[in-house]
Amino acid sequence: MSDRYDIAIVGTGPAGLEAAINAKIRNKNIIVFGNKDLSPKLVKAAKVNNFLGFYNISGVDLKNQFANHIAAMGIGIINEKINNIYAMGEYFALMVNEKVYEAKTIILATGIEYTKPLKGEEEYLGKGVGYCATCDAPLYKGKTVVIIGYNKESIEETNYVNELSTKTYYIPMYRGEYNLNKGVEIINGRPLEIVGEDVVTKLILDKGEIITDGIFMLRDSVSPSQLVPGIEIEEGHIKVDRDMKTNIEGCYAAGDCTGKPYQYMKSAGEGLVAAASAVSYLDRSHENK
Amino acid sequence: MSDRYDIAIVGTGPAGLEAAINAKIRNKNIIVFGNKDLSPKLVKAAKVNNFLGFYNISGVDLKNQFANHIAAMGIGIINEKINNIYAMGEYFALMVNEKVYEAKTIILATGIEYTKPLKGEEEYLGKGVGYCATCDAPLYKGKTVVIIGYNKESIEETNYVNELSTKTYYIPMYRGEYNLNKGVEIINGRPLEIVGEDVVTKLILDKGEIITDGIFMLRDSVSPSQLVPGIEIEEGHIKVDRDMKTNIEGCYAAGDCTGKPYQYMKSAGEGLVAAASAVSYLDRSHENK
Repeated sequence: MSDRYDIAIVGTGPAGLEAAINAKIRNKNIIVFGNKDLSPKLVKAAKVNNFLGFYNISGVDLKNQFANHIAAMGIGIINEKINNIYAMGEYFALMVNEKVYEAKTIILATGIEYTKPLKGEEEYLGKGVGYCATCDAPLYKGKTVVIIGYNKESIEETNYVNELSTKTYYIPMYRGEYNLNKGVEIINGRPLEIVGEDVVTKLILDKGEIITDGIFMLRDSVSPSQLVPGIEIEEGHIKVDRDMKTNIEGCYAAGDCTGKPYQYMKSAGEGLVAAASAVSYLDRSHENK
Repeated sequence: MSDRYDIAIVGTGPAGLEAAINAKIRNKNIIVFGNKDLSPKLVKAAKVNNFLGFYNISGVDLKNQFANHIAAMGIGIINEKINNIYAMGEYFALMVNEKVYEAKTIILATGIEYTKPLKGEEEYLGKGVGYCATCDAPLYKGKTVVIIGYNKESIEETNYVNELSTKTYYIPMYRGEYNLNKGVEIINGRPLEIVGEDVVTKLILDKGEIITDGIFMLRDSVSPSQLVPGIEIEEGHIKVDRDMKTNIEGCYAAGDCTGKPYQYMKSAGEGLVAAASAVSYLDRSHENK
């Protein structure tokens, strides 16, 4: 845990992978956070025609090409979800539930979140609404908590919360088996709105409502502004310059999270540039010591 | 010659090819100017490791992948050198010696010219120094002309000039056979400086000098500012924004000509964005009619 990486790359779509490849070639000590499937969006693509060098290729085949490429270069993927990234001055701290990773620079390649926030979600964020149940569970000791789970990883967090809270509701947003503690009550319904006064008081569903003290939204990804407090957003995307620099020193971004067009080749190109900029930043920092 | 294309793409490295692919997918009527070898720089690369999807591939093999891709999509390449591109308001005129092509938008993907200009070249440009011998030959009727040829295509232009000029010198900057008219005198030497007063008066070589009225530099590529009069250059590269827009409306640029890093994937990514921006511009123009 005490290793400090040169570059932490968050995301394993074309932007994150190309950044990883280029950083590795430049002999940097990197860590890559993402998904073993690399990019859920890519895997779902029927045919890709505009990635130069591969005509009429399926998303799965292209994903396999990418997977082979990084495997051949010895690049591994850490299959953990980053909850927050804090700029600590000399380095960045990447929070993964109870763990902390450290890196001198960050490349955000988190893609774009297509699910809209729930009505009231942004208003009550930090006032009863949260994205990391294990982080904030102690706040809800002896209280009622609703967990809206978008993936099966939500189960473990829910069970943990249940050990502290008096009452735990789980609303699954996916199909599957829910291996929950006995005390957790499953609610089948569609959340519509979060309401409250100073803090959250209830969740309104398509059928009925739940009186609650806290609501956790456990999605596959969090928005960049949640992930990296203080990062500048412009029209819904991370603001970057031509070198893929964000407003935070040492923090770069690439791919769909920086804006349209949402295309693999655009993302990959930006990943390369982001890595080149991070390497250049590291080399300059090194010279100044 | 009266066809007006939607998009003219100048250059067939990764930037130009990816732009062509994306524009074609978007059903635009395109014309692509370049080289049958696609990219001389790419072909010379021993191994490429940082083009996502292809690990440890030779430059030639990667070029072949690109060639197969554009061939599968029915994209052809016009093997002609553009001398100048003029913004005509409604469209652009692309000058190819005696021919003119027309296009509503332009994507410059001309790469980067590594040869430095000769001392005095920029100072006397248009004052005896030129880049298109066939264009300007009539100005040198009955006069002395020096042609500095960087490729075998220079031969034809030299012979044409020789029919009008009184005295023609040819300085080859490459090895090969020089199939020149009898009247052309070959000079083996290294040009050092162009000197003159109001106009060119002589060329200084490493050994000796030549008194002359005009000097043509026939390189593989001309600089962007020569190619597109009025285009904004910043630190030696075409200035573009994140949408790959130049300062000239309807004119986009991508790849090495827009700046570092000089990497294939960066170029390809920019090519995609340039094409998306050109398509969007064309669609907007269409709506306004």
